[in-house]
Amino acid sequence: MKAYLTRAYLFSASHRLHSDEFSAEKNAEVYGKCNNPHGHGHNYRVEVTVGGQVDATLGMVCDLAELDTFVNNEIIERYSLENLNTLPEFKEVVPTTENLSIEIFNRLRSGFKPAEVTKIRIEETAMNSFEYSAGAELR
Amino acid sequence: MKAYLTRAYLFSASHRLHSDEFSAEKNAEVYGKCNNPHGHGHNYRVEVTVGGQVDATLGMVCDLAELDTFVNNEIIERYSLENLNTLPEFKEVVPTTENLSIEIFNRLRSGFKPAEVTKIRIEETAMNSFEYSAGAELR
Amino acid sequence: MKAYLTRAYLFSASHRLHSDEFSAEKNAEVYGKCNNPHGHGHNYRVEVTVGGQVDATLGMVCDLAELDTFVNNEIIERYSLENLNTLPEFKEVVPTTENLSIEIFNRLRSGFKPAEVTKIRIEETAMNSFEYSAGAELR
Amino acid sequence: MKAYLTRAYLFSASHRLHSDEFSAEKNAEVYGKCNNPHGHGHNYRVEVTVGGQVDATLGMVCDLAELDTFVNNEIIERYSLENLNTLPEFKEVVPTTENLSIEIFNRLRSGFKPAEVTKIRIEETAMNSFEYSAGAELR
Amino acid sequence: MKAYLTRAYLFSASHRLHSDEFSAEKNAEVYGKCNNPHGHGHNYRVEVTVGGQVDATLGMVCDLAELDTFVNNEIIERYSLENLNTLPEFKEVVPTTENLSIEIFNRLRSGFKPAEVTKIRIEETAMNSFEYSAGAELR
Amino acid sequence: MKAYLTRAYLFSASHRLHSDEFSAEKNAEVYGKCNNPHGHGHNYRVEVTVGGQVDATLGMVCDLAELDTFVNNEIIERYSLENLNTLPEFKEVVPTTENLSIEIFNRLRSGFKPAEVTKIRIEETAMNSFEYSAGAELR
Repeated sequence: MKAYLTRAYLFSASHRLHSDEFSAEKNAEVYGKCNNPHGHGHNYRVEVTVGGQVDATLGMVCDLAELDTFVNNEIIERYSLENLNTLPEFKEVVPTTENLSIEIFNRLRSGFKPAEVTKIRIEETAMNSFEYSAGAELR
Repeated sequence: MKAYLTRAYLFSASHRLHSDEFSAEKNAEVYGKCNNPHGHGHNYRVEVTVGGQVDATLGMVCDLAELDTFVNNEIIERYSLENLNTLPEFKEVVPTTENLSIEIFNRLRSGFKPAEVTKIRIEETAMNSFEYSAGAELR
Repeated sequence: MKAYLTRAYLFSASHRLHSDEFSAEKNAEVYGKCNNPHGHGHNYRVEVTVGGQVDATLGMVCDLAELDTFVNNEIIERYSLENLNTLPEFKEVVPTTENLSIEIFNRLRSGFKPAEVTKIRIEETAMNSFEYSAGAELR
Repeated sequence: MKAYLTRAYLFSASHRLHSDEFSAEKNAEVYGKCNNPHGHGHNYRVEVTVGGQVDATLGMVCDLAELDTFVNNEIIERYSLENLNTLPEFKEVVPTTENLSIEIFNRLRSGFKPAEVTKIRIEETAMNSFEYSAGAELR
Repeated sequence: MKAYLTRAYLFSASHRLHSDEFSAEKNAEVYGKCNNPHGHGHNYRVEVTVGGQVDATLGMVCDLAELDTFVNNEIIERYSLENLNTLPEFKEVVPTTENLSIEIFNRLRSGFKPAEVTKIRIEETAMNSFEYSAGAELR
Repeated sequence: MKAYLTRAYLFSASHRLHSDEFSAEKNAEVYGKCNNPHGHGHNYRVEVTVGGQVDATLGMVCDLAELDTFVNNEIIERYSLENLNTLPEFKEVVPTTENLSIEIFNRLRSGFKPAEVTKIRIEETAMNSFEYSAGAELR
């Protein structure tokens, strides 16, 4: 049986919801005030779940310090205190938190080797959260 | 792969745990002080999860404003500041939070069309929560 | 200098906001849906603050076990899983959380002897809280 | 004795920390990455405290619905989903959360008449908060 | 369909991360300051999930009072205010929170009969949590 | 008028409540299971409040990076992942959280120069917190 470790990371950033494929009217309609050209922002709480066998000697799924170093270097440094729309991965992709979850999941899953990254959950506000997971549909 | 959006809604209500199929003694035994005829209450936090493909242009699982309108009209208006025992769905069903979860899940799953409602989670207190989900057993 | 210890206690109860001095129309106007005759309820989080010199040998403002015993016997036993309107102190006083704060403050301040009860704070919901304090106006 | 009611309101916005009185180098030094020209953002939780005698008939410090209407119209509508730097009050004042607290305090204190607004507290992140209060120094 | 009830329990304890199979140098390297011989500690929040059919008369997955009694007697009494390393189950097993989750899961799953214990989740800090579940891999 | 900035810092540590001035029986009586010779522990959340005029150009009470550096060097490095009883300041002082609050307050108030440290609040558990403040009695 596997155990799962979830570690939370915090950063603040801004974004504007706007699709180049929509007219100005359509953008205003579908995104409302979130389409405001000057953007708005959030405190994002990113929860990274890794899963695996608990090592019999070490007693851990993976070394937490290794996970922290990887996530801080690859994710927090990249997104903290930035406007997401200015980053290359959101040039043609709307920086909704759904898309941010997928982007972070793919970066961590392909890059972090000591254990399998199985799920990303992002709290965008106290009332909204988003999940993206490996494998079959979960719910 | 699907992404999942969870949105939280808050309301306060009261209930009395009492089954007409039990004697007064049995009700007192199984429900304890929750069988008090004047009822007691809670702040319920209802978390609604919807899942689906992230629309490539829109970048969302579904329009959050549509979900908010539907949940507010169908659930929050119905239960907020009410005594649950006075509502028709709890005339013959004990308004435990298990049964409230099932009732809210069924109302949202059958009525909300823009995306699939996959799970309801209700926090009844800071120490208790309940989940009811679509599909196969999850855990 | 004094130190202050704050300890939290949780209970769930119901209430109906209704004043016998108001007409039915006036009650409906001032209390809205909270005037619903069947009541509604909350999870109350009561934070009790006691202050005093830190005892040089013991290292404490007061013995936490003594405070717990007193608050559980005098407050939690009294209000937990009750409809507040049925209690004698709310026969002629509307059981708003302002009045509940004053009632709990007075019971604890006059009854608890090992240290001075200096403040009561009650969270009625995740969005509302109430404070009542000893001494001069604080804010 | 007075009682105090605190009500929380949530909004998300973005800001850039930049002073026209500083050189580019000085701005970078004092504000760090918060000086990024594209801005970043936060989920702000604004806690508004009002104080006063509890009305003997009504049982309240003030009508919560009146407070909600006032704060929503004057504060939340104004700041929600905006870039704070684009608003007139932050043309010559850096939109730090200290200054946002003072601005909101002054707007509410001078405009809300049913009870005295005694304190504003803003949570900028899970780790930072700011307070601004009426009257003498409090702490 | 099954419903799931999750109940939270709190306790504080200390532990030292140290494996007898590692040299002093290796222990220092893999556990860092957590290998400090005097130990450190946490407030653990243990969330116990039980699942099952909702009883048609009772309206519950299981009697909450029975669950509380069992968990308090078997888990909280055992671990609260203890140094985990002094307990027999952690004589040869490092008391990481992964291993504590497995230990608590096995004790509850084999001992609690009124409903199936399906998952244990332990929050070790505000930023770390661990899950261990019955059945197939979940994520 | 002054504004107040509160910043939170987290660390985990262990302690044993024991006074050399008490007999073994008296220690067991007053501290209960917290007198266990192997100790237990907590996740401490230390909230540091600094107050002062908001600088007209900078818009801040003090530079947050300076505060973080000072608190991390003087407090978090000192206490994180330690057994408090092993530190010189708790050789003759019981490491209750009252005494820890006073110790941290005195270290920060005397050492941090850019703004006045006006209050320390420590959450020892989800249910307990302690405050120690400058100046007159506050509550």
